[in-house]
This record gives sequence, structure tokens and C-alpha cells, in this order.
Amino acid sequence: MEEKTLIFGHKNPDTDSICSSLVHEILDRKNGWKTKAVRLGNVNKETQFVLDYLGIEAPELIDHVEEGQTVLLVDHNEFAQSVDGIEKAKILGVTDHHRIANFETSEPLYYTAKPYGCTCTILFEEFNRLGHKIEKTEAILMLSAIISDTLLLKSPTTTEHDKKALEELAKIADIDVNTYGLDMLKAGTDLSDFTSEQLINIDSKEFANGDFKFQVAQVNTACIEDVLQNKEAIENAMTDFMNENGSRLFVFLITDIINSNSQAIVLGDVSVFEKAFSKTVENNMAFLEGVVSRKKQVAPVILNVI
Amino acid sequence: MEEKTLIFGHKNPDTDSICSSLVHEILDRKNGWKTKAVRLGNVNKETQFVLDYLGIEAPELIDHVEEGQTVLLVDHNEFAQSVDGIEKAKILGVTDHHRIANFETSEPLYYTAKPYGCTCTILFEEFNRLGHKIEKTEAILMLSAIISDTLLLKSPTTTEHDKKALEELAKIADIDVNTYGLDMLKAGTDLSDFTSEQLINIDSKEFANGDFKFQVAQVNTACIEDVLQNKEAIENAMTDFMNENGSRLFVFLITDIINSNSQAIVLGDVSVFEKAFSKTVENNMAFLEGVVSRKKQVAPVILNVI
Repeated sequence: MEEKTLIFGHKNPDTDSICSSLVHEILDRKNGWKTKAVRLGNVNKETQFVLDYLGIEAPELIDHVEEGQTVLLVDHNEFAQSVDGIEKAKILGVTDHHRIANFETSEPLYYTAKPYGCTCTILFEEFNRLGHKIEKTEAILMLSAIISDTLLLKSPTTTEHDKKALEELAKIADIDVNTYGLDMLKAGTDLSDFTSEQLINIDSKEFANGDFKFQVAQVNTACIEDVLQNKEAIENAMTDFMNENGSRLFVFLITDIINSNSQAIVLGDVSVFEKAFSKTVENNMAFLEGVVSRKKQVAPVILNVI
Repeated sequence: MEEKTLIFGHKNPDTDSICSSLVHEILDRKNGWKTKAVRLGNVNKETQFVLDYLGIEAPELIDHVEEGQTVLLVDHNEFAQSVDGIEKAKILGVTDHHRIANFETSEPLYYTAKPYGCTCTILFEEFNRLGHKIEKTEAILMLSAIISDTLLLKSPTTTEHDKKALEELAKIADIDVNTYGLDMLKAGTDLSDFTSEQLINIDSKEFANGDFKFQVAQVNTACIEDVLQNKEAIENAMTDFMNENGSRLFVFLITDIINSNSQAIVLGDVSVFEKAFSKTVENNMAFLEGVVSRKKQVAPVILNVI
């Protein structure tokens, strides 16, 4: 039996990571290539809403890859965010919309990155470039990812390409984007059954510049106050995480998807955060007006200070 | 006056680095973007043959970029092979056919890599994708780069994409590829006016894995013996280079473009080379049967051993 090339997004997968791996598999099948979407962590509630809507199963969960395994990365490239064993895998290709860092191959590869709001917008353009018809299933997978990553086109990461893709995909899916999108985003804000340890891991990413490792986690909510009721327990979980992982700074973003602001809980080397945002952290917190994007408004700002 | 985005290939530019930066500028102009091809080093004799054939000037030489300068990289990504100051530049995009390593950005970007024999083959596909007509000038620039990088399609780096691109470009250019190509390659093998210091710098690239820095330089020739007449002076130049740059290993490939073999002069940590190629280095030399590609047959083999 031929071993299939595995496709996966980042650890703590969000809707774009799951949907873009599934869409990539569909695109590969149309091209006659045998690949298999897998995932590196639990499906969050927002993504589960999408899978339930379509009546499809989540990709299989994996926790490592063997040496020499052929892989395709979507929605990430940094090894710290990727599967265990990635250093010894054979990376055939990457489709991504993030900065490139802490990434290395020993051989040439396919790499398609565009500074768009969502990986699925790049895949949408690949469908068009290759002349493949977009069916309803992949249209809904792609539009869900775009809604998720751009918070219904309200995030500053949104580009004209994302807007155009969402518009065309909505036509194919025959869906009212605002109604569907708000239902989907709200499904993701139900944080009631999470312990604090789980909460800080729903969508958490590690960044590094030289020796300085830091973590930025994010949850979406319709009410910041609800999440802050467990502030002390969240802080304890953040401290435990930092001790275990050697992180120098942990920023936990509680993002209000209705008003497009974030409350940040900040622990560790707070001075780096304060310098980055010209803000004083009080009671371990800072309010970030208009900030909703980790990728555009938080990670690079901190990286520039380190 | 608006500052233009600069396009450049690697240091010690070869024909692909010069031609792909010129072709990228032409493509950008067709897209309505203002960019400017520049170069990071002397034009070699092979490339000068191409520029003379077309009657066009070499791109302007630069030796560094200022902080915040917007740039587009072609035919390389590793910072050690790029312009001085690249760490502080704003990299908007990369078009390349090499492995990715020692490369990092703080922001998302356009990155188009394909495991082809030549950057210009990727640019050829971009012309087609964007529906732009290819004129005779850019056809000759692109086919020259393909001939150079693939040694007239004989290098193992050659892909079906390169073959197809060369065939179509030859039609547009109305040129006999074998006659033109051999004349061009032979122009590059005239090494008579080079000092040994210059010889080892004509096409030299630094690689690194962790602390281990090594250098692989390459010259093309129709007669290996001619080059070996200056073996001792070349070895002295290699030793001086290693001392100045902290390289642990220097491999100087003298490539016979007629018979597709290379004679290597090897200095420094020779055991790494011997392990990589299962060859004994005698009198500082090893003959590499069928080896013509640094990228495919030399650099990754050494990197795997380190």
C-alpha cells in the first residue's frame, strides 16, 4: 500500500487549519494526487459547527510523523507550531498566509504564501488557476475559514482577495454569509465547558526570536466579562504553562467579536509587552482597542521589540 | 519621488539571478507596479554574453539596503546569500527554486517557490498565469537562464517544466537553442583573466547548519585540466577565504560542461565531505562522476551529514 502524503494545519487547529487541509485534499484529488488531511489537535466548537453543518467527519488526529514522511503544510510554517517530528519529515509543499520563520528544508519545495487574511482564499485562487469547479462542500469549507480568520471581514488582516473569494463562495454555497457566519462565530464563543488549562490552549501559538520564546493565545467571546470571571484560574494556568515550556511572556487575548476589541491578560516579562504597545499592564491586564488579530496586531509588534 | 521596490538575486550573481531580476521587473511593469532590478555583484562572462546579445545594460550594482527598504528576492532566500542589511529590509516577496533556510520575516509576504531547475521557469509560468504576452527580449532572458541553470537540460535539476518552458521560449525568440546555448556556456568557461581569488568567488555560496558554516563554489569549464594548472594558487585562495569567513569546509567544483562531471578541490573538515560522498579525498581532490548540480547533488548531501 502506498503511503499517502499527509496535509495538516497548525497545532491547536482553528477553522482555517482544519478547512484548508480538507480543501487541499479535495483539490489534490481533482489533480489526481493521493493525499490525506489530518489534524494536530482537538476540533474547536466553531469548527465543529462547520463540520456538523456539512455532516462530515473531522480529519484523523495525529501526534507525530515518522522520519521521511511526506507532508504538506497549510496555514502555518513555523516548526514550533507544527507536528512533532517535522524536522525529519520531507516537506513537499506549504500553503500559508503567515510570516516565514523557524522553518527550514534541505531540498527545494513548493511554497505558496500570500499576505491574505486566510489560507482558504489562496486555495480558492488555486481552484480558479487550475480551472477546477468548486462544489458546494468545498465552498462552505472555504467560506467558513474566511469568516473565521477575518471575523466576518472585520479584522485588519482582511484583503480585497478575501472579500472577493467570500462573495463568490457565498454564491456557490447559496448561503447568507452574515447569518451563517454569526452563528458559526457564536458557536465558537461558548467557552462554558472548558477548564482554564483548556481555555488557554484552544488557540495558542508559540513565537520565538533568538532565545526569547513567548506564547500568544486567543479566545473569541461575545462578552469579555464572562471570561474574566475565571481570571485567577486562567492566570494560574498561564503561569504553569510558562514554567513547563520555558516561555518568557504569555499574552492571553480575550477578543470581543461584536465590538472588535481585545482584553489581554499578560504574564511574564510584562515590560516587553508594555514597550510593544506603549501601555501599562495593571492587575495583569491591558485593554487593546481595535485589536483582534494576533498575526497582524500582536505577534509582529512584540517581535519588533525583542 | 517614490522609492522603488528593489529586485535582486543572490551574491556572486549567475545568469538566472540577473535574468530573473530583469524579467521580474518587466513582469511588474506589465502589472503596473514600479520596481527596479539591481545586482549584488559582478556580471560573469556567461551573463555578459546574454546582455551583449540583447544589447542591454546590466542592472545597477548595490552593496547594501537601508532599513525598511522594500525588496523582492529572486533565485535565493538564505540571508547569507543576500544583500547586506536584508535583516532590516521589508521583504514583500520571493520567487525561488531553492530549499528554504536561514530566512525569516516578521510579516506575511508573497512567496512562490517551485522545485524547478530555474527561477525563470517559474516566471515563465507567471507570465502565462497572468495572461501577459512574452516579448522576444524577456524570452531570451528566460531561456538563457534555463540553459545556464540546467546546462542545456543536462543537469539532474531539470524538470519537465523547464523543458516545456525552454521549448516555448525558443519559438518566441526564434533561436536555435543548442547553438546559442553552447556559445553562451562556452563564454562562461573563459577563466583566463581571473586571479585565483576571483575564480573561487565567481559563483560561490555559503551554507550553514547550526554552527557549521561551509562554502561551495563552482566554475564551468570545457577542460578540467586547464583549471587545475593553478591548483596550488586556488588552494591558497580557498584557505584564505576560510580563515577570513570562519568556514569549516570549502568545496570548489570544477564542472566539465561537455561530459557532465566535476572535479572537486576540498579543504577544511574533509571528513564531512568524505562521509557525504563515500569518497577518499586525495591530494585535496575527489572526482565526482555525473555531478554537475551544487543544489541537488552537493549541498544537500553535505547538509545531511552535518
